[in-house]
Amino acid sequence: MSSTAHPGGRRVRIVGTGLIGASLGLALSRKGFQVSLADPSPTAAALARDLGAGVLAADLAIQDATPDVVVVAAPPDVVADVVALELAHWPNAVVTDAASVKSAVLTALQDKNADLSRYVGSHPMAGRERSGAMAAQGDLFEGRSWVVAPGPRTSARAVAMVRQIAEAAGSVVFIMTPDEHDAAVAAVSHVPQIAASLVASRLRDLPSGAVALSGQGIRDVTRIAASDPGMWTQILAGNAPAVRSVLELLAAELDEVLAALRRLESDPDGGSVGARAVLARTVADGNAGHALIPGKHGAAPTTYASVVVLVPDEPGALGRLLRDVGEAGVNMEDLHLEHGIGQPFGLAELSVLPAALQPLTVALRALGWPVHEQ
Amino acid sequence: MSSTAHPGGRRVRIVGTGLIGASLGLALSRKGFQVSLADPSPTAAALARDLGAGVLAADLAIQDATPDVVVVAAPPDVVADVVALELAHWPNAVVTDAASVKSAVLTALQDKNADLSRYVGSHPMAGRERSGAMAAQGDLFEGRSWVVAPGPRTSARAVAMVRQIAEAAGSVVFIMTPDEHDAAVAAVSHVPQIAASLVASRLRDLPSGAVALSGQGIRDVTRIAASDPGMWTQILAGNAPAVRSVLELLAAELDEVLAALRRLESDPDGGSVGARAVLARTVADGNAGHALIPGKHGAAPTTYASVVVLVPDEPGALGRLLRDVGEAGVNMEDLHLEHGIGQPFGLAELSVLPAALQPLTVALRALGWPVHEQ
Repeated sequence: MSSTAHPGGRRVRIVGTGLIGASLGLALSRKGFQVSLADPSPTAAALARDLGAGVLAADLAIQDATPDVVVVAAPPDVVADVVALELAHWPNAVVTDAASVKSAVLTALQDKNADLSRYVGSHPMAGRERSGAMAAQGDLFEGRSWVVAPGPRTSARAVAMVRQIAEAAGSVVFIMTPDEHDAAVAAVSHVPQIAASLVASRLRDLPSGAVALSGQGIRDVTRIAASDPGMWTQILAGNAPAVRSVLELLAAELDEVLAALRRLESDPDGGSVGARAVLARTVADGNAGHALIPGKHGAAPTTYASVVVLVPDEPGALGRLLRDVGEAGVNMEDLHLEHGIGQPFGLAELSVLPAALQPLTVALRALGWPVHEQ
Repeated sequence: MSSTAHPGGRRVRIVGTGLIGASLGLALSRKGFQVSLADPSPTAAALARDLGAGVLAADLAIQDATPDVVVVAAPPDVVADVVALELAHWPNAVVTDAASVKSAVLTALQDKNADLSRYVGSHPMAGRERSGAMAAQGDLFEGRSWVVAPGPRTSARAVAMVRQIAEAAGSVVFIMTPDEHDAAVAAVSHVPQIAASLVASRLRDLPSGAVALSGQGIRDVTRIAASDPGMWTQILAGNAPAVRSVLELLAAELDEVLAALRRLESDPDGGSVGARAVLARTVADGNAGHALIPGKHGAAPTTYASVVVLVPDEPGALGRLLRDVGEAGVNMEDLHLEHGIGQPFGLAELSVLPAALQPLTVALRALGWPVHEQ
């Protein structure tokens, strides 16, 4: 194996030097991998090189250019073509890609009769609503999920080599099939995006004074509604079957809610017990789904206790509060800020483990903070 | 006017001493109002008195008991009955209520032939997903919106007197018709709740390993999915017509998205330009709606710049960071935390005014914080 011949690390070729490709090059170069960079745009490749992401593939002699692993970080609509070219060009290399949808890429490769024992799809879940290649960061992947999605013909060696790269970049690896991956991201990412966009869209119907009633609830629900339409059109179109499947189930429940509301509208006082039961079950099912989301650090979901503290709106006030929380020996699990309308303060909701609630409340009150238990 | 006879403040009678009633009593008593308290449960009224919310109405001589304003803070299903009784019992008093839906109450009162010149509905928008009468706080209303919703026969005097109370409690008053109010809260509160519940509900379909891919997006979208089903059933049922109306528009757009996804599914490569346009327009409309949400302090919406900082997961680390932000003279507009999976740190996204971005980045980097510009 070439890893023996190159004890400094494996040879990784990165094709596509945008945000993901350049960031991965930075991360792997720091870990001693020998990274070579290729991009249809020589300028983009040179920029990534200048950032420290690796050397230009074009500058290497052929014996140094032969990669152990190729990572294709190209735009979604060309990924399958590029993967097929790389598989054909480097007959001993393992090839992976970084597209956010996995079944469509695999299906396209099957149609091309590529050597699929050396291909395994992956999805480094970094980036969120950020974009822009200039933002390349060597620690972009640290603490993020990285899905490795073997197909039916993928070799164990291919999975192991891509896992090694993902872990070297600091990610936590999840192995699942392409279909499992696509169903998961449909439910945890793509459908939430559509829901946030649709809810935000309805605000356009309101007079401006009415939008002023927006509280923290809608701010949270619609935060990701600020995402880029072009990027999301590609993502949703690329995962159309899985998104459609989850969205159909959601639409069916939405229709039940609508039917219940219509029954209550026509008979507000009378025997609408069944209609109320539909509403209660909808919210209760949401409770149950919400409780499945893992807690901090991927641990089992935990119910936190929370306190609300009034924080004056002046530089450093929130910092003083959180320093006081830290000096009380309490570790915050989560924090939400809510700004008062027309008031010189905000509300900070601190979530802590239930056992820490009482000590925290006592400590903060002793320091003069106005604390509300929830 | 009795305000001259009682220069210390107006006489306010609060009927219903749960969280809202007791908190309002606390707030108004502190501002020198003479608050009397009534509740069907003598224990609940006595608790509110002991908390400092006012005196018991039952203890007052008749000449001291006559109120200028009655605030009915009763459960939604009895509000109209109680308001009608109070209007009849105090023929010179202005009566308001605190229910979260306004048209249904007014309609019920019209059916009762009450003196509607002295009634004006209101909705103090405090409480969020909090509940529990023991949580009464004199500052519950500070910085919150308080809608005053006059009907067609409401007198200007009634509006002025209720506005005075809302402002004394620290709220920002919005005047709108009952229908405008109900349409607004349907769009900014009730429909977002349903959407969050439906999105969270779908997580129940996933294997547990797949839910582990949940990122910050779905955490934000579904935070309010943890809300109480019983309370929300009452709220949604009470505002059924307005919620139905907004939800129907949302469902129609959802159907368009589904149709577009089905077209892309059956013809992923070919002429699905129209389908992609539907997806792009959905996200773009969401952008436009999201941009309408007012910024901090009710100011015009502002686009903030943001930086992401790696924060070690240890007590006080976030406090140190935010103290450093404060000492840099920069005021944070918003803060989101994202916990790394399996990593001893979290990511803090700090939103600041665009002009503050560069000075903040420089200051934090000088202090050794790992800062990513977005």
